[in-house]
Amino acid sequence: MYLLLVFRAMRNFIVVGHKATTTPSFSLEDIPGTSGRLDILCRAVTAAFVISHGIRKDVCVYLVLLGGEIPKTIRLVGETLRHLNPDERTTAALLKKALAVPATPEWAMSTSGIFVRTGGLAEVLTDLKDAKLIYLREDGADIRGLDAPGKDSSLSGEAAFILGDHTGMTPEEEALIEQAGARVVSLGATSLHADHCIVLINWFLDTNVFMSG
Amino acid sequence: MYLLLVFRAMRNFIVVGHKATTTPSFSLEDIPGTSGRLDILCRAVTAAFVISHGIRKDVCVYLVLLGGEIPKTIRLVGETLRHLNPDERTTAALLKKALAVPATPEWAMSTSGIFVRTGGLAEVLTDLKDAKLIYLREDGADIRGLDAPGKDSSLSGEAAFILGDHTGMTPEEEALIEQAGARVVSLGATSLHADHCIVLINWFLDTNVFMSG
Repeated sequence: MYLLLVFRAMRNFIVVGHKATTTPSFSLEDIPGTSGRLDILCRAVTAAFVISHGIRKDVCVYLVLLGGEIPKTIRLVGETLRHLNPDERTTAALLKKALAVPATPEWAMSTSGIFVRTGGLAEVLTDLKDAKLIYLREDGADIRGLDAPGKDSSLSGEAAFILGDHTGMTPEEEALIEQAGARVVSLGATSLHADHCIVLINWFLDTNVFMSG
Repeated sequence: MYLLLVFRAMRNFIVVGHKATTTPSFSLEDIPGTSGRLDILCRAVTAAFVISHGIRKDVCVYLVLLGGEIPKTIRLVGETLRHLNPDERTTAALLKKALAVPATPEWAMSTSGIFVRTGGLAEVLTDLKDAKLIYLREDGADIRGLDAPGKDSSLSGEAAFILGDHTGMTPEEEALIEQAGARVVSLGATSLHADHCIVLINWFLDTNVFMSG
């Protein structure tokens, strides 16, 4: 029962990197310029996990990397995640290690709490088919309306938040997300980077903002 | 009149780096390990300024660097800020340039929108004596109570938010901040990094959360 409760409270973040490299050959001295903007995904990882005195155990991040010949996904699991520091370069070094692991359609562990496999957004959405899917897009409904009294209880179980990178989702991805039954919600009129969206979502969940809707 | 309105709406963020270097001799290959955790301040800068399609013009950031022989402060002004990218290393490189400028008690420009001088928190608080000062600390009052109906209008004018780094404020700094008349407010029970606090404050100001208190 305890395990079940822990599982149900999990916060999943899915971040799609449309040009993000699937090989470890990028330079840590120029992450934005050599990795297909893997820096965006590094900051998303930090935003998802890092708090002042540790790592959020109840978070799981899926980084969907689409900048290679075949898609790869890196999964980071808070419960067992090790070696994550708040700085961008350290995170990039962890992802570099993960990309050096030979990837197959099955998850393979790189370092503690970090896994890699081939496959993209469709596979992740299948993994998370039992979670409440929430897709962040500027023209969505106000996120604070989620779980308001009288509506169905979107965030009482496991939730998965889907975020794009700087290029936005393709029509094919939009269709996949819609077919998966995701709600489209917005954080407001100001368009924010994925990592900043994740900071806000974590805070909403920490402070039960949704419950006060 | 237009200029006055712009000035009054300014968002100031003051971040104190207790061990942050005041010289440009740190390594961009190991920012956390060689700069007295200037990486924390780099992320605060990004959180304060960067949105999806540009830079926030109405933001001003003061980085108080206390890790050298004498304190220095770097000021970044959104209205004229140039060359800021979302990645940590680029920001660190801009700060490195600022620290190479000979500093005196008067502001000297480094690159567009970035200024440096000697002096620490006391001098910044004097600069901002006409702003509403808000000090973020875990045991403060709930930030969402600011500007609630019936209270005075804390955020209708220029506001300045004071944040510490990973080491917290010293008793002397606490006394300075109290004497300056700052309100002590909290973002909740989960202790967050300074950059994540700034993301939240920007969102509150963007969406007028304070007004709905």
